[in-house]
Amino acid sequence: MLTETGTGTGTGAFYAVVEGGTVTTPKGFRAGGLHCGLKKNGRHDLGVILCDVPAAAAAVYTLNAFQAAPLAVTRDSIAREGRLQAMLVNSGNANACTGKQGDADALEMRSAMAASLGLPEHYVGVTSTGVIGEPLPMERVREGIAALPAQVHAGGGEDFCQAILTTDLVKKEVCVRVSVGGKDVYIAGAAKGSGMIHPNMATMLGFITTDALIEPADLQGLLSGVTNTTFNMITVDGDTSTNDMVVAMASGLSGGVALRPGDADWAAFEAGFRHVSEHLAKAIARDGEGATKLIEVRVNGAVSDEAAQAIAKTVVGSSLVKSAVFGTDANWGRLIAAVGRAGQPVNAETVDIRIGDIPVLAQSSPVRFSEEDALVYLQQDEIVFHIDLHMEQGSAIAWGCDLTYDYVRINAAYRT
Amino acid sequence: MLTETGTGTGTGAFYAVVEGGTVTTPKGFRAGGLHCGLKKNGRHDLGVILCDVPAAAAAVYTLNAFQAAPLAVTRDSIAREGRLQAMLVNSGNANACTGKQGDADALEMRSAMAASLGLPEHYVGVTSTGVIGEPLPMERVREGIAALPAQVHAGGGEDFCQAILTTDLVKKEVCVRVSVGGKDVYIAGAAKGSGMIHPNMATMLGFITTDALIEPADLQGLLSGVTNTTFNMITVDGDTSTNDMVVAMASGLSGGVALRPGDADWAAFEAGFRHVSEHLAKAIARDGEGATKLIEVRVNGAVSDEAAQAIAKTVVGSSLVKSAVFGTDANWGRLIAAVGRAGQPVNAETVDIRIGDIPVLAQSSPVRFSEEDALVYLQQDEIVFHIDLHMEQGSAIAWGCDLTYDYVRINAAYRT
Repeated sequence: MLTETGTGTGTGAFYAVVEGGTVTTPKGFRAGGLHCGLKKNGRHDLGVILCDVPAAAAAVYTLNAFQAAPLAVTRDSIAREGRLQAMLVNSGNANACTGKQGDADALEMRSAMAASLGLPEHYVGVTSTGVIGEPLPMERVREGIAALPAQVHAGGGEDFCQAILTTDLVKKEVCVRVSVGGKDVYIAGAAKGSGMIHPNMATMLGFITTDALIEPADLQGLLSGVTNTTFNMITVDGDTSTNDMVVAMASGLSGGVALRPGDADWAAFEAGFRHVSEHLAKAIARDGEGATKLIEVRVNGAVSDEAAQAIAKTVVGSSLVKSAVFGTDANWGRLIAAVGRAGQPVNAETVDIRIGDIPVLAQSSPVRFSEEDALVYLQQDEIVFHIDLHMEQGSAIAWGCDLTYDYVRINAAYRT
Repeated sequence: MLTETGTGTGTGAFYAVVEGGTVTTPKGFRAGGLHCGLKKNGRHDLGVILCDVPAAAAAVYTLNAFQAAPLAVTRDSIAREGRLQAMLVNSGNANACTGKQGDADALEMRSAMAASLGLPEHYVGVTSTGVIGEPLPMERVREGIAALPAQVHAGGGEDFCQAILTTDLVKKEVCVRVSVGGKDVYIAGAAKGSGMIHPNMATMLGFITTDALIEPADLQGLLSGVTNTTFNMITVDGDTSTNDMVVAMASGLSGGVALRPGDADWAAFEAGFRHVSEHLAKAIARDGEGATKLIEVRVNGAVSDEAAQAIAKTVVGSSLVKSAVFGTDANWGRLIAAVGRAGQPVNAETVDIRIGDIPVLAQSSPVRFSEEDALVYLQQDEIVFHIDLHMEQGSAIAWGCDLTYDYVRINAAYRT
């Protein structure tokens, strides 16, 4: 289940992956990025997604009690009309815990970008990622924002993707095509995030564009629902950032009539939207700081989906499980220990565990297995743990990564 | 607050630390240890604490849903009369998730130890620590148990302490003396634990002995209460083991009358008992796998003690905070981010944070501080973070350790 399937779901709702697609593939979107001086390495640190028209907009925000200044600004913009035409992002500085100056700086970023693009302020959203607690060097940001419109172009998805990265090693983007009312509709996404990542949106930024014609409220409902089983089911280190946000913009330029939940093609659209979100979420987990492997935990037979989610997240977030995967050690005792401490109902007599296709625990008793087979499996770069509680029908999937020397190296030296 | 104070609390309840004291210092206790073949390195892996009389006994157990087999056996023994005369422990094998054979093995360990010492079975408790899911090599255990009584002696506290270690680097023991009714009463403790450690008792074993005369129910109440603010306030890696247990045994051989809550000397006894528990808990955190530093997080001004506990544990358990401490990086943004994701009420405008005595955040706004001073402070081996929420009177202290390359090395290779 970890490989990219080109099309399809079990419900007859089909989508096709568009190779090389970016956030500017859906009709009406352009993007750009540049280096304004927030990152020391000379890489892009300021980017924008621009729509030809005010796009239906939806967003989900971190649950951290200390939300960074730009989140309030974006929330305010979307609240006015449910539309955004430009989404501005900087990396290298989170503008979080920066006091009243930080609030003022985020507002100034919005007004400067709006002026620079000739848009009403409330059609501009703002987001930031990087170090917490340091004031933004606003003179550089101002210059960057003034220069940004000249960098915006139809093929600018790649530049934008570069501008949102911090400790990420790779760009994360994906695009799918679905058919709605006989017309091609594109859904694309870009994301960043590799540390301070945990369920409920952690140093993670996601940008989803589509040319579907859809009402803001329907887009918000879709984004919120899909986020729960995708972006909120990943963890790198259990930390949740102050800055996380996923924003979706729908230009409506695919043509045709408005798409609504319950329509004949809604299932296909939702499946495509889910694919984009899941692809980005898994890409973030796979690129977790220092990670060498993607870990997928599948829980079945729990008393509810919520219980399954809690168990899956606990297992995939366990430092001991993560270290064992790094060490290619089939140490299933750490899996069962993590299941047991998730705070959810379990039957201590009925648990099955498989490492890939290798049964290691059946009805809570150890199964003799080939250590050699397990080693071969664990040397792959995508590891799946199957946990079946044999209680009710609750199920969930969570994604994470292994814990390595490099995670420690990266985070011991991040700021200095 | 991290240095060992010889005596005292603020309530006038005094105790004195007994240098070199062990679990056999309280009157009536002997102990011993030997190597029976569970550990590959030839070190002690089987130990026992033996009391001259049936001691009042109390215990607290892991909250993990998959409790190891020996826990049920000890629970059963204590349930009969509230007394234990011998506490048997093995290291190198947890006897957890070992099915019905594991249950039978734990019962056989109890009956064999009882026969070997000439005691009723229900005066014997059993506990295990080590790898999960592998059957105990019972022939070695049987031979070890048969040989163990000959190793028991009054100075056997050190041998016992060796027998309970797994990846621990140092022994953890402490002894205090208090005065009860004009008589000297000793309270001593030994503990193991360095990985899979988290609030609510994780791969942690604690053994507390005292010669106080106290009823089992009073001892249980004291142990449960003190555990909440000591053993349950430490974390190494957020994992909670299947095997954790803290057991207390009171021989009553100090003489005098029975000590009861509310007695004139109860406060002194409780303070001494708390000192023993806190000392062992901090020693476990300090000896966390791969750790180079002890981290103490003090939260004040929370809406309740429970909220403060949750926040303190979240901060001290944050991989990002732990990595920053390893890297001597005064990255307070990670502290505030952890506070914000603890799921407890906070006022985003009123938070103060100090790193040691260095203010870094005041009323939620950054304070300019000397990076050099912070570096000097963070290079010490005991780091204290002070967090004041300025809401209500809730307070808590949690302990943990830094996250290092060695944690990953130890846990990537533990089983293989």
